[in-house]
Amino acid sequence: MIVVMKSGSTPQEVEHVVKLVREMGLKEHVIVGTERTVVAVIGNDRFKDRTALETVAGVEKVVPILAPYKMASKEVKKERSLVPMLGADGAKVGGRKVQVIAGPCSVESKQQLLETAHAVKEMGATGLRGGAFKPRTSPYAFQGMGEKGLELLALARQETGLAIVTEVMAVDQVDVVAKYADVLQIGARNMQNFNLLNAAGEQPKPVLLKRGMSATLEEFLLAAEYIMSKGNANVMLCERGIRTYEEYVRNTLALAAVPELHRVSHLPVIIDPSQGTGKSYLVDSMCRAAVAAGADGLIIEVHNDPEHALTDGAQSITHQQFGEMMKSIRRIAAAVDRES
Amino acid sequence: MIVVMKSGSTPQEVEHVVKLVREMGLKEHVIVGTERTVVAVIGNDRFKDRTALETVAGVEKVVPILAPYKMASKEVKKERSLVPMLGADGAKVGGRKVQVIAGPCSVESKQQLLETAHAVKEMGATGLRGGAFKPRTSPYAFQGMGEKGLELLALARQETGLAIVTEVMAVDQVDVVAKYADVLQIGARNMQNFNLLNAAGEQPKPVLLKRGMSATLEEFLLAAEYIMSKGNANVMLCERGIRTYEEYVRNTLALAAVPELHRVSHLPVIIDPSQGTGKSYLVDSMCRAAVAAGADGLIIEVHNDPEHALTDGAQSITHQQFGEMMKSIRRIAAAVDRES
Amino acid sequence: MIVVMKSGSTPQEVEHVVKLVREMGLKEHVIVGTERTVVAVIGNDRFKDRTALETVAGVEKVVPILAPYKMASKEVKKERSLVPMLGADGAKVGGRKVQVIAGPCSVESKQQLLETAHAVKEMGATGLRGGAFKPRTSPYAFQGMGEKGLELLALARQETGLAIVTEVMAVDQVDVVAKYADVLQIGARNMQNFNLLNAAGEQPKPVLLKRGMSATLEEFLLAAEYIMSKGNANVMLCERGIRTYEEYVRNTLALAAVPELHRVSHLPVIIDPSQGTGKSYLVDSMCRAAVAAGADGLIIEVHNDPEHALTDGAQSITHQQFGEMMKSIRRIAAAVDRES
Amino acid sequence: MIVVMKSGSTPQEVEHVVKLVREMGLKEHVIVGTERTVVAVIGNDRFKDRTALETVAGVEKVVPILAPYKMASKEVKKERSLVPMLGADGAKVGGRKVQVIAGPCSVESKQQLLETAHAVKEMGATGLRGGAFKPRTSPYAFQGMGEKGLELLALARQETGLAIVTEVMAVDQVDVVAKYADVLQIGARNMQNFNLLNAAGEQPKPVLLKRGMSATLEEFLLAAEYIMSKGNANVMLCERGIRTYEEYVRNTLALAAVPELHRVSHLPVIIDPSQGTGKSYLVDSMCRAAVAAGADGLIIEVHNDPEHALTDGAQSITHQQFGEMMKSIRRIAAAVDRES
Repeated sequence: MIVVMKSGSTPQEVEHVVKLVREMGLKEHVIVGTERTVVAVIGNDRFKDRTALETVAGVEKVVPILAPYKMASKEVKKERSLVPMLGADGAKVGGRKVQVIAGPCSVESKQQLLETAHAVKEMGATGLRGGAFKPRTSPYAFQGMGEKGLELLALARQETGLAIVTEVMAVDQVDVVAKYADVLQIGARNMQNFNLLNAAGEQPKPVLLKRGMSATLEEFLLAAEYIMSKGNANVMLCERGIRTYEEYVRNTLALAAVPELHRVSHLPVIIDPSQGTGKSYLVDSMCRAAVAAGADGLIIEVHNDPEHALTDGAQSITHQQFGEMMKSIRRIAAAVDRES
Repeated sequence: MIVVMKSGSTPQEVEHVVKLVREMGLKEHVIVGTERTVVAVIGNDRFKDRTALETVAGVEKVVPILAPYKMASKEVKKERSLVPMLGADGAKVGGRKVQVIAGPCSVESKQQLLETAHAVKEMGATGLRGGAFKPRTSPYAFQGMGEKGLELLALARQETGLAIVTEVMAVDQVDVVAKYADVLQIGARNMQNFNLLNAAGEQPKPVLLKRGMSATLEEFLLAAEYIMSKGNANVMLCERGIRTYEEYVRNTLALAAVPELHRVSHLPVIIDPSQGTGKSYLVDSMCRAAVAAGADGLIIEVHNDPEHALTDGAQSITHQQFGEMMKSIRRIAAAVDRES
Repeated sequence: MIVVMKSGSTPQEVEHVVKLVREMGLKEHVIVGTERTVVAVIGNDRFKDRTALETVAGVEKVVPILAPYKMASKEVKKERSLVPMLGADGAKVGGRKVQVIAGPCSVESKQQLLETAHAVKEMGATGLRGGAFKPRTSPYAFQGMGEKGLELLALARQETGLAIVTEVMAVDQVDVVAKYADVLQIGARNMQNFNLLNAAGEQPKPVLLKRGMSATLEEFLLAAEYIMSKGNANVMLCERGIRTYEEYVRNTLALAAVPELHRVSHLPVIIDPSQGTGKSYLVDSMCRAAVAAGADGLIIEVHNDPEHALTDGAQSITHQQFGEMMKSIRRIAAAVDRES
Repeated sequence: MIVVMKSGSTPQEVEHVVKLVREMGLKEHVIVGTERTVVAVIGNDRFKDRTALETVAGVEKVVPILAPYKMASKEVKKERSLVPMLGADGAKVGGRKVQVIAGPCSVESKQQLLETAHAVKEMGATGLRGGAFKPRTSPYAFQGMGEKGLELLALARQETGLAIVTEVMAVDQVDVVAKYADVLQIGARNMQNFNLLNAAGEQPKPVLLKRGMSATLEEFLLAAEYIMSKGNANVMLCERGIRTYEEYVRNTLALAAVPELHRVSHLPVIIDPSQGTGKSYLVDSMCRAAVAAGADGLIIEVHNDPEHALTDGAQSITHQQFGEMMKSIRRIAAAVDRES
């Protein structure tokens, strides 16, 4: 880190900063500029709380230099990670093939789920999404079928071979979800539920981690670091749109996150254009854009009857729309030397 | 809700919307305007998922009319709620007195905590804050003292009579935190941890609920509704700054939330100027502004030695600064016919 | 519009709203719901100031139904507009071919401009960008070469046949810029400089209008409407990234704006991935994503020596990078049945 | 500035950075850390374009150290500036008295303006606001009375002695507005209309400069610097709310800007709670909060008949509400050792 002193800071103030830096077990390098003095701190300060220095007399600000995450970083592992989806076909996320995870927002019934599972499988999906435990903004909204929903997902896997991706909302659900699911999804609202991240890190199934709705990429990678630091390296990062002032979409899909995450991390990146826009009519073009930007996978809400969906009808596409989308992203994938 | 049809929508499309509205058990009122047709939906649609209608052919958008929360709403309870802090002095939040909750970001040691507890008590605080379980962005940062910290908080209460306000991060911590604390704090990162909200609603201690870092007021009140709908009416709403593009602060303190929450809800409103700015030198003026805006309480980070604070040093004020702040808000409180 | 009355509003209050609606020359339709009364307003209220109604006793809020723009709207003109770039090759924006406008951020010298102009022309660009009048955040930064820069742009057109796209910052520059340029660019900071919009509408050259850094799409289209309502229908909409809390980019490129603008407007949409990210290493993938999303054109900063660029070096790509990008977007364009 | 090299950057890359730094006329100081090398740049780099360095091989990022503004900075002038309002009473902004500028959003008629002018004067205002040239989002909305409105403002000054504060939207309006007005207002949409800033800097009347709707404080102060660098030191900074994701307000009023601007600049700070919330029922409490936070002035929309206001009815308060607000801020002003 770099400690920037105020204009007019005294030598005593600089000395005091130096003393505090040394107390942290770090070394300093004082540079007296023409207008400001800065104290460059030498050593691994990744795990130090630098904010304390900001309160010291004569200090203007403290600028971090090192990224605070390590295991998720490309500095530690140069080659891209391949994360297994644990489906019957051995599909992995992060390789040449752009994996598509599709299915309803919520598991609603056996018929609904199986109908959609078969349809998306046939059209090229390798994963099946579907919520059994649903985080809902309102306590009065449909909260999901719970374990009964997980059983239906397991049945769908048995029938189709699709890898099951489903959300876990709480530490005490980890065991039951991990029992049925192939990939544990941690939702945007829980990206900084650190107890849940730890629990996901302590079990063996891969984790699809969604970016919080106003998380920075650094916070996002630190959430992945929580999981990885507990021993689970199989983390997929999922961009699902961020909250901005925009009104025509539910969230603003920030596709530059794809190349940027690939630049700083070795983890694969999945895009959720359904949450990422909130509008079914924008999903198709955002799927194409995501694949063109280099996404390793897509997770898409597909419903056999969106008009009667219990949740997220507005952003669910029909089976037919899904089929057309698959055709169009196959062409895009080829154009970036990948397949789908 | 109002269903706005697209320009050029057909009578069949309107009819289909009407059919779907009736399926929901609601009534419709079709208004044919000069440019658009709208379908006004009559009845309590508060708990219906309106998004499904947005996917219907011919529909442009669906506009909600009713607020989706009920128990937190002023429509249900006109007079302001008084929430007890359960301290020795019987202080309540929401009345004439502006309550001040002060203390360190984290409980770090017996000496640190007691020193600050005695100091803030003497200068007029009625609550003591201090984290034992700490939500930290990085897995490598200090994670709090856990139950040992709770014991120190209980000791501080015994010595000072201050009501203890401390954070609970997970469902399985609710019992132990409720055992020691007077008020359970739910942090911004957990505002939509619905399992935790439910658990907080099922225990008897009052809850200080922080607004999520990019939550709308509607989402904030729905989070309160989760707690209330489980039987716990003692909820205090805490505005702690929102995430915006601004760089000179850690968060943007949105003080208009005070009068707006008072307008739509009966719950008391507390301001956190420490998180709300992230800069100790901005705390004093934001405390004054908060009281002037009508806040029912303040929660403030105070440290006996901010330079060596294990967490959030940059936003902690010293004992002396706290004393000066208390003097200045007392004058403001008097100017708005309250006391502090 | 729909006027939503407060819960508990009186019949007198509703009657007063009706009176005000009629004063506006509009008709009303009062709907008494189970919890609220709403007054649906019939007639073209596009040009009425609805905010006045929000201040009326008993009114909760006023919800607009009609989009406030007209000439820019797809409701008025269903087929996509083709906007001529006025270059030697007769290229138009909005057709099958994705047009690429490339060149330096600022015109700096004859050699610099011509070198880049020839290079981008050879690799497939049809337009040449380059600022002669530069809007700079700091008064001490390079402000552009002024008319001398415009002369160099004209020289570059003469040598290459590229259409010249350059910014006009003020009403009194319109004549001189229109004299040399083929397309007038109005920058993000001037998107709501209404006098400039009017002046651009009163001259005959096409206009490339950039979205303001925190403009909604509605505000963006109303800015286009200013130009069109003065008689100039040749407007291209340019998305150049919006301001959000994100830190790793200069702006967040909101690519869902492409399909959404195409959905509500007939005007062509151009993407600026240079401003839209602020990082040269993100430009390539965002160009691909933009074309995949359906963009009609790209405007890209290219410099023969980015290390010594007087402005925006960080987001400028080299000639070689431009060449590779052109190859990759050609493949994407083909995959969406277009060409580049 | 500090140039942070990538992990693994080569000595040649560092040397090349050093060469570029020296080309800029600056000196370097290379610090080889345990994980990264950084190049600290010594000398006044305030007016250099540092972004070019970000494009250099081996460079991770460039961190600025010096604030880019100078004349607006407290480093140059320690004591607070007093800006004259040029009214009959010699009122200045920035002193002990909190100045109140009040009046209609738009000048609509002689009767409307004079009625309000007399009312606000009587209740303690020292400035009269009122738009003659109106920046309107829609080309179809009321655009203001133009010079006729300026004449009415001059008449109101003659009758009341209030200082006239009115907006200038374009360079070619500067002369006529300066002829009638005492203070030139530059609106949020024009904060980065640099030609207008220059023109305002070249004429003698004081300027009330509004913060752009998503401007950083640094950009805001650089806009002030434009005016000051042309010779006009009489600039008042006006915070009027920023654009965020919040929906219950038109803008989010960021009151921490008051102490922060006072910390880094000597210029006085005015708050606009009308634009800053967009809701008349939030104005009163935000006026109190602004004064408590240390604001030097308020600018408030007051209308004799908000229901029939041609513009901004929703955020205009009545004469009676203005009177009550004045009483309440007088008490707050006294509580912070000021007067109003």
